[in-house]
Amino acid sequence: MIELLLIGIGTGNPDHVTLQGIKAINAADLILIPRKGPDKADLAELRWRICAAVLTNPAIQVVEFDLPMRDVASPDYLAGVEAWHDATAAVWREKVQETIGLQGCVAMLVWGDPSLYDSTLRIAARLAWPVKVIPGITAIQALTAAHGIALNGLGAPVLITTGRQLRDHGWPAGVDTLVVMLDGHCAFQTLDPKGISIWWAAYVGMAGQILRKGSLAGVAADIIEVRAKERATHGWIMDIYLLRRDHD
Amino acid sequence: MIELLLIGIGTGNPDHVTLQGIKAINAADLILIPRKGPDKADLAELRWRICAAVLTNPAIQVVEFDLPMRDVASPDYLAGVEAWHDATAAVWREKVQETIGLQGCVAMLVWGDPSLYDSTLRIAARLAWPVKVIPGITAIQALTAAHGIALNGLGAPVLITTGRQLRDHGWPAGVDTLVVMLDGHCAFQTLDPKGISIWWAAYVGMAGQILRKGSLAGVAADIIEVRAKERATHGWIMDIYLLRRDHD
Repeated sequence: MIELLLIGIGTGNPDHVTLQGIKAINAADLILIPRKGPDKADLAELRWRICAAVLTNPAIQVVEFDLPMRDVASPDYLAGVEAWHDATAAVWREKVQETIGLQGCVAMLVWGDPSLYDSTLRIAARLAWPVKVIPGITAIQALTAAHGIALNGLGAPVLITTGRQLRDHGWPAGVDTLVVMLDGHCAFQTLDPKGISIWWAAYVGMAGQILRKGSLAGVAADIIEVRAKERATHGWIMDIYLLRRDHD
Repeated sequence: MIELLLIGIGTGNPDHVTLQGIKAINAADLILIPRKGPDKADLAELRWRICAAVLTNPAIQVVEFDLPMRDVASPDYLAGVEAWHDATAAVWREKVQETIGLQGCVAMLVWGDPSLYDSTLRIAARLAWPVKVIPGITAIQALTAAHGIALNGLGAPVLITTGRQLRDHGWPAGVDTLVVMLDGHCAFQTLDPKGISIWWAAYVGMAGQILRKGSLAGVAADIIEVRAKERATHGWIMDIYLLRRDHD
């Protein structure tokens, strides 16, 4: 029987790892590290660095595998994602069987936390293996910590959403704080900026962390410019932002 | 000059502490531990346990202080909270001055993460001290990890809200997943349970963690009963739940 440990490792600062995460890493027989192509080599690199820093059990195998490519040209977005999850689960099974066989404990180091806009749990659901999740620091906590702000207003709700949702549906009713993730196109541009403040971060928690904050009207253009430039430099970008609407 | 470190310590599992949190704890001159009355002695206890486990610098002072009581009889809820924050800030300042004087680094160990339904940042804003936040595991991550579930549907939004909001405003439009915190009165009872599932946890992450899940219609009564019983036994309870509405 294979047991799967999904370990949240935080957002790029190796010190985001928890003591629980370190114990789980050292309880595995195999650690699988996904390779996402040369553009994202630094993401695999971070997982190697964490293993190097906290692995104390020399019997544990650490093995890289090539993540299947998602067919971004697929006309049906959801069907494309489903097919990609199927293919990834098949690669996990193959890698596990060729390294530790049919029995043992396999750990995956998951960026942020496995619960939040992450496909690992959905891929794991395709295999008949029991799963244990170790929570990690999310990009939301890293964002609010970097800016030193509260997520919520006093007793008030917060909506976590995506760039696509914000662009397609606008500012939702009944909530004055939004956290926007997975936004490749700066969806905040589609809002009337009046009375809205933004706290933005790219590569949050990492050495190259970039922060911007201010009125949306005042800083939107700068964020769009910085984002494009950094994305071109690194080959990839991860960013996240919080929008707060002045209630008055 | 006083510098304030607000360190998220997670939800009661001492192993939720991050490596960054451990480094911050050991970089302080003074660690302040709030005492909230005998009913919540185990919450102060956890902070002492974390200090005992990770403090390696013997020069650091660890000092308890009595948290002022909030006037729950105040007819104006928000004014009562503001007055309580003022009083707490005054106690911090007094304790800091009598232990380390006017210069040094003061750490506070914050349950969960300082950004999420926590008053520490608002109290700190009353003092003219620079603040650094170290993110921690939130009850939301601990809840989803304990149940092994994703927080969001595929590309879908999630609303974090309070029991009071849910009771007063019902299920908000445009979102199928709610996380409910600060709910002393099981506000899920006010919903039509049809098509709603619940994942509930009390003392999540702690040794006495209790989990329930299922259709809201099927498990609501059990949750209400268990919650009342556990609250009576411990003298306090912290619980959190996720509600998901079947979209079909």
